[in-house]
Amino acid sequence: MNYRAIFNTIGKIAIILAVLMTIPTVLALCLGENSWWVLLVTVGISLVIGLAFTFAIRPKTRAIFSKEGLIIVALSWIYVSAIGALPFVISGAIPNYIDAFFETCSGFSTTGATILTGAQIDSMYVTDKALLFWRSFTHWIGGMGVIVFLMAFESGSSNRGMHVLRAEMPGPTVDKIVPRARSTAQILYLLYIGFTAVEIIALIIAGMPVFDSFVHAFGTAGTGGFGVRSDSIASYNAACQWIIAVFMVIFGINFNLYYLWILRKFKEAFKSQELWIFIGIIVVATTAVSIDLALADLPFIGGAGDAVRHSAFQVASFISTTGYSSIPSSAGDINIFPLLSKGLLFLLMFIGGCAGSTGGGLKVSRVALLCLAVRKELRRVLHPRNATAVKFEGKTVSDETLNGVARYFGLYMLILAVAFAVLCFDSGKGLDVLSNMTAAVSCLNNIGPAYGVAAGGYYMYNWFSKLVLSFAMLIGRLEIYPIILTFAPSTWIRR
Amino acid sequence: MNYRAIFNTIGKIAIILAVLMTIPTVLALCLGENSWWVLLVTVGISLVIGLAFTFAIRPKTRAIFSKEGLIIVALSWIYVSAIGALPFVISGAIPNYIDAFFETCSGFSTTGATILTGAQIDSMYVTDKALLFWRSFTHWIGGMGVIVFLMAFESGSSNRGMHVLRAEMPGPTVDKIVPRARSTAQILYLLYIGFTAVEIIALIIAGMPVFDSFVHAFGTAGTGGFGVRSDSIASYNAACQWIIAVFMVIFGINFNLYYLWILRKFKEAFKSQELWIFIGIIVVATTAVSIDLALADLPFIGGAGDAVRHSAFQVASFISTTGYSSIPSSAGDINIFPLLSKGLLFLLMFIGGCAGSTGGGLKVSRVALLCLAVRKELRRVLHPRNATAVKFEGKTVSDETLNGVARYFGLYMLILAVAFAVLCFDSGKGLDVLSNMTAAVSCLNNIGPAYGVAAGGYYMYNWFSKLVLSFAMLIGRLEIYPIILTFAPSTWIRR
Repeated sequence: MNYRAIFNTIGKIAIILAVLMTIPTVLALCLGENSWWVLLVTVGISLVIGLAFTFAIRPKTRAIFSKEGLIIVALSWIYVSAIGALPFVISGAIPNYIDAFFETCSGFSTTGATILTGAQIDSMYVTDKALLFWRSFTHWIGGMGVIVFLMAFESGSSNRGMHVLRAEMPGPTVDKIVPRARSTAQILYLLYIGFTAVEIIALIIAGMPVFDSFVHAFGTAGTGGFGVRSDSIASYNAACQWIIAVFMVIFGINFNLYYLWILRKFKEAFKSQELWIFIGIIVVATTAVSIDLALADLPFIGGAGDAVRHSAFQVASFISTTGYSSIPSSAGDINIFPLLSKGLLFLLMFIGGCAGSTGGGLKVSRVALLCLAVRKELRRVLHPRNATAVKFEGKTVSDETLNGVARYFGLYMLILAVAFAVLCFDSGKGLDVLSNMTAAVSCLNNIGPAYGVAAGGYYMYNWFSKLVLSFAMLIGRLEIYPIILTFAPSTWIRR
Repeated sequence: MNYRAIFNTIGKIAIILAVLMTIPTVLALCLGENSWWVLLVTVGISLVIGLAFTFAIRPKTRAIFSKEGLIIVALSWIYVSAIGALPFVISGAIPNYIDAFFETCSGFSTTGATILTGAQIDSMYVTDKALLFWRSFTHWIGGMGVIVFLMAFESGSSNRGMHVLRAEMPGPTVDKIVPRARSTAQILYLLYIGFTAVEIIALIIAGMPVFDSFVHAFGTAGTGGFGVRSDSIASYNAACQWIIAVFMVIFGINFNLYYLWILRKFKEAFKSQELWIFIGIIVVATTAVSIDLALADLPFIGGAGDAVRHSAFQVASFISTTGYSSIPSSAGDINIFPLLSKGLLFLLMFIGGCAGSTGGGLKVSRVALLCLAVRKELRRVLHPRNATAVKFEGKTVSDETLNGVARYFGLYMLILAVAFAVLCFDSGKGLDVLSNMTAAVSCLNNIGPAYGVAAGGYYMYNWFSKLVLSFAMLIGRLEIYPIILTFAPSTWIRR
């Protein structure tokens, strides 16, 4: 094990975290908020750790293998969550460290699950804007990934690049946009910054306050879901809701396709089967939920326009795994939706965004490959001697890929079952089977809101449940292997 | 496609159905119940169909392939459910045919889900004992399988034997007990009859009325769950409940092991890993649920003895996929159980009995193989070059078997998602996400009761939902492939 390379890279991540945290620090100073020194102290801590690790522990060799790549990614994400939580604790906004760790894991993993109550969020909006900014900024950092960020700025990382990039980038297969990992990372971040900027401007034009526009653009870009009001997006005007709905879909699409569009390779970009499946699911689900909402007697739905807007918003929010809500708090929460809408949205939770997007979930292409694996299996049972080739995205898919997806799905469901079982030991107020099941599904798929009592937040869970859900969020964001293997004893025991 | 062999075999199944239905017919005559002529008419119908198919359609060749084997099994089960439902419809006990089909599918598939209300069951117990007998007798027939029954009695079926036996016998792999399929079938049925007889005698000695003893022994043997009282097993004494709990576990164990015990091959029998995993899960779950029940303030639990009895009963009932309940109707239904108990029982629903038992679910060995596949996958990610062999039941498990289990699981979850989605279109009274989800899980795994409003029966679902759940039950009982492939167009289109 190349321990030196691992610690050295985490040191660099620590420095990046410190640099990025200067932004909310400056904001706090400008706004005259008390949290500036809290943020500055955390910047200092991370800078010291970072410089110590980077300069004191120099790797003898830069060569790392798949194993080290996974561990680097896992420990980096745990590091940023553990240190990123400090401002909340020191400032007293979230006095309990486990709560703050949950909130920061939820931020970086782009989940958007919160342990804050609506009243606490509303009060922080008045006195602690900089902390709310940091909370949402973690979404933006986590969306494209901290390692990808490091690779975009660091020179000479090409030799270890793809191992680490693969471990952090979502989806069953990772295509390099361009041969060099560093250039790929730079292109991804440029696109990411560009889209975020466009959304911020669009929201400001539509009438959203400037601070809120930044925060919600971060939440949308990372498909996270942290807001700054107790009722999420419900109290903004319809134009703002439509803009966010459209951008949730945009950030749920594979970024490689945008690069192809910029290169004017339209034909190639529009050949993507995953894109059309994603759009197809959104159109079908939005239609079904619109009709269901229109027929239900809900107080906040006046006509067909309202039904379509709320339907499109919730569908985009769930499939992109963002988790924003357009339901007015006077009406309640997602629990008041009619059964069909709740059922379909629950299924969308599992699908998630496209591979190579900032969305979570199983990913559209993985679900598609699972369906293809199943179809192939049915054909095999029927005609044991005729092997038919499976094609996806214009290429023949190997049996190894199909089996890999099936095994990944098995692992994913086992983790879900374990997380659900652990939550059932919790005696938190109002918890029931539905709340725990949807909470586990929501956190593992990086969505945020759940059904039942967990629709309003996660504050009723005990510390152990929160810790388990925090790791479920990281497991989901990093697609299982990095976190699980880092905590497996066999990774560390030399044979 | 060997159509003649398919029809010929279904003809034989029709004759068997007619013969078996003479038993409740005679019972109705003895009890002086009106349903005797209804049952006799159905016997006549099935006999005519059977004789017509058997003698008019003679196969030119007895050679059949895997494809024909699957179709024979699927159509046989649909036939017995469709015709077995007639007595309920003609007698007026269940006037709607879809309801009666649901009830009979639930019977043969050993699910035990009912569309009857508690009051209807209580009233049938007074006036229609013969129909209740038939309802539970379908459990007993379906438990070991109708094709296995045919094979036990038919001569000269050895050449097509294993194809068909495989399609009907549960579990990821089928071991022949003895080289000839016919002898295997005979041994299985002898063991099955023996255990059922022992349970009947035990229940009678414990004080259960004779009729009830027969019916509940059928329900236990097939791991079905139909009872004759509105409160299932709750109003019988503790001894009866313990006897049923123990026999639910017995019928959840692989029958091959009993044969080994009879042959005094104890060492070989006790080497079964699946057996120990099954018992281990039961012990752990019973302990956890006992403590949970003891701590909860439930009116029907007076002390530790009650807690252990109800816990053991429910755990045995859920893992064996029987579905009997020991909860007094005065206290409510499974919904009043505390959260941990409900959560763990929900997870047990998926596991089910051992392969080669009459239990449903995924089967213990398949879940174990799925865990082994996942562990192997994790090792592969960590050490891509070191391939380690996976062992189960003392044998090396091939990658093909592990991948097959993973693909089967993917297919299973997709079917579950489709069934759940269809149920969400239903506007039946009180239906919610939890009811629909647990109803889909319960029917696909052949358990019976669900949570939420479906805990009390399935009468609130509309005809389409009932039809979908009926097929989910058959899909679950026959382990997916036969039913799905029989309805796939590609099975029938010649290429």
